[in-house]
Amino acid sequence: MDKVYIGIDLGGTNIKIGCFDSNVKLLGKTSVPTEADLGPEYVVGRIEEATKKLLEESGKGIDELCAVGIGTPGPANYAEGIIIRATNMPKFKNTPLRDMVSEKLGRPAILENDANVACWGEFVLGAGKDITDMVFFTLGTGIGGGIVSKGKLVRGSGGNGAELGHIIIYPDGQACNCGQKGCVEAHASASHTARRATEAIQAGKPSSLKKLLDQNGEITCKDVYEHLAKGDELAKQITDETAKALALVCVNMLHITEPKRIVFAGGMIGAGQVLLDRIKDYFNQYIWRLKSESVEICFATLGEDAGIIGAAALTLDELKMKNQAK
Amino acid sequence: MDKVYIGIDLGGTNIKIGCFDSNVKLLGKTSVPTEADLGPEYVVGRIEEATKKLLEESGKGIDELCAVGIGTPGPANYAEGIIIRATNMPKFKNTPLRDMVSEKLGRPAILENDANVACWGEFVLGAGKDITDMVFFTLGTGIGGGIVSKGKLVRGSGGNGAELGHIIIYPDGQACNCGQKGCVEAHASASHTARRATEAIQAGKPSSLKKLLDQNGEITCKDVYEHLAKGDELAKQITDETAKALALVCVNMLHITEPKRIVFAGGMIGAGQVLLDRIKDYFNQYIWRLKSESVEICFATLGEDAGIIGAAALTLDELKMKNQAK
Repeated sequence: MDKVYIGIDLGGTNIKIGCFDSNVKLLGKTSVPTEADLGPEYVVGRIEEATKKLLEESGKGIDELCAVGIGTPGPANYAEGIIIRATNMPKFKNTPLRDMVSEKLGRPAILENDANVACWGEFVLGAGKDITDMVFFTLGTGIGGGIVSKGKLVRGSGGNGAELGHIIIYPDGQACNCGQKGCVEAHASASHTARRATEAIQAGKPSSLKKLLDQNGEITCKDVYEHLAKGDELAKQITDETAKALALVCVNMLHITEPKRIVFAGGMIGAGQVLLDRIKDYFNQYIWRLKSESVEICFATLGEDAGIIGAAALTLDELKMKNQAK
Repeated sequence: MDKVYIGIDLGGTNIKIGCFDSNVKLLGKTSVPTEADLGPEYVVGRIEEATKKLLEESGKGIDELCAVGIGTPGPANYAEGIIIRATNMPKFKNTPLRDMVSEKLGRPAILENDANVACWGEFVLGAGKDITDMVFFTLGTGIGGGIVSKGKLVRGSGGNGAELGHIIIYPDGQACNCGQKGCVEAHASASHTARRATEAIQAGKPSSLKKLLDQNGEITCKDVYEHLAKGDELAKQITDETAKALALVCVNMLHITEPKRIVFAGGMIGAGQVLLDRIKDYFNQYIWRLKSESVEICFATLGEDAGIIGAAALTLDELKMKNQAK
């Protein structure tokens, strides 16, 4: 009887769940609305129900389930499996999610930062599968990060390491939601890329985006990249600023953990090759001359499945380590 | 017969050598001039001679020597034990130092970055001896760094990780010798602290340092801190800028590898508590508000011995790992 592993990516909007065999091969996946406003008990019930249904659909019984991995946004007490608070799930406060899920499903569970989990997915099966040292950024509303050093996640002393979105790149820069100034997130995230475009148009800069802003009252990062593709000059300039900010953190991360590859994921990579090329251009402009660097800067390859893959793969590794320690 | 280990700290001016037992207890140490201009062959001869003399003085024979650890400035190919080049030892170019020393002494040797080695010394026996996650900075002419994550040095994919002096903190800042702009080294190292003071005086800022500059044609970082202690306003302002730059990298490193402790070493910590206090003040001012942080910022405790201790301790660890793998 082959054991199966469940990987869960718990977001503010949807819960993604994947069922995997012991080679991290995807057997089946599902997605259900989080409905976080109904509270942790309800959400854990949804997870139980959806997991059992998914196991059934994958031709597996609950008795074949080995362990469950859950990725959630930080900050959290990962060692204890407790969500301290979650900006997009306000009813989750000091919620012992790991133990709640573990009890419902009757199996061991682990809780890990969502960006770490996606990073691990890419490392095991995606853009980092052939290397040992990787840095990972998810570019969404915020910017999350993950670091793999010599084949291990860098979790930090309290499990809140690799908060790479809050590296300060411009000390006198934009205020970030976290309370700092000039975080890379406050300059290069999707929401702040849209903000910069909006502010520029409001300041009178000509752009094909203006019509859209007038019509909708807002523009999104996706709009910026769509108009970039059509040749809008302002969209080009805004993208350049995003690329500059991301190149600066690439330079810094190279000097810190010296990855072989720096991988970008998240909705923003929909901007495509033009964004990647600009990041590389600025990286080459900013990087030192002491020695030539061969770090590769690239996009993730697993798309939205990275989270469930990474969560399942982490539980597998955890169990292996425990068995080795015995 | 108890085995002994040799730790070597190879600098541009002096070669420091320590003899240790298998508990990393110092049995004896020595220091000889490097005379790097006479070339690698000569320097390796000096190392052989001084090591044998030190073993004798420590009451040990060469037959009791187990292994040799060597710390050198980067960049180097540490995996192969080759110094690529060394700014303060121009005759060392693609020098296979590890194998040269190993052959002369007839024992296995390892080559490691000098800041990593000092970091490891502090981690094993000094300011980090009771923790698992640490970040380390040496503040000298340049700024070197080291990272310990879950009890292991973060060496990076090519052994040139933790080049923390080249983290860019001010993208439009001062030109650094490395070719980048705004590196923390270009703002907060001893030489750049002295440079800022010199430039301020030349620009007409009043200071008790002016007399010294007029007399000697230059001022050193040590002068700045001496005049700071005497209450000079300019020295205070210059120290503040240094502290600000160091606080910014502390914030960034907390978000990256989440150390339990950040340790400063090197000549500049002679400035004392006033520098440390200012770094902490700025850290508290810059750090996010998402959660409270308990990272400790402190000075190193081993002084100049950190390098030889770390080099010896690393060889011990390396041998242990090899024996475990057998």
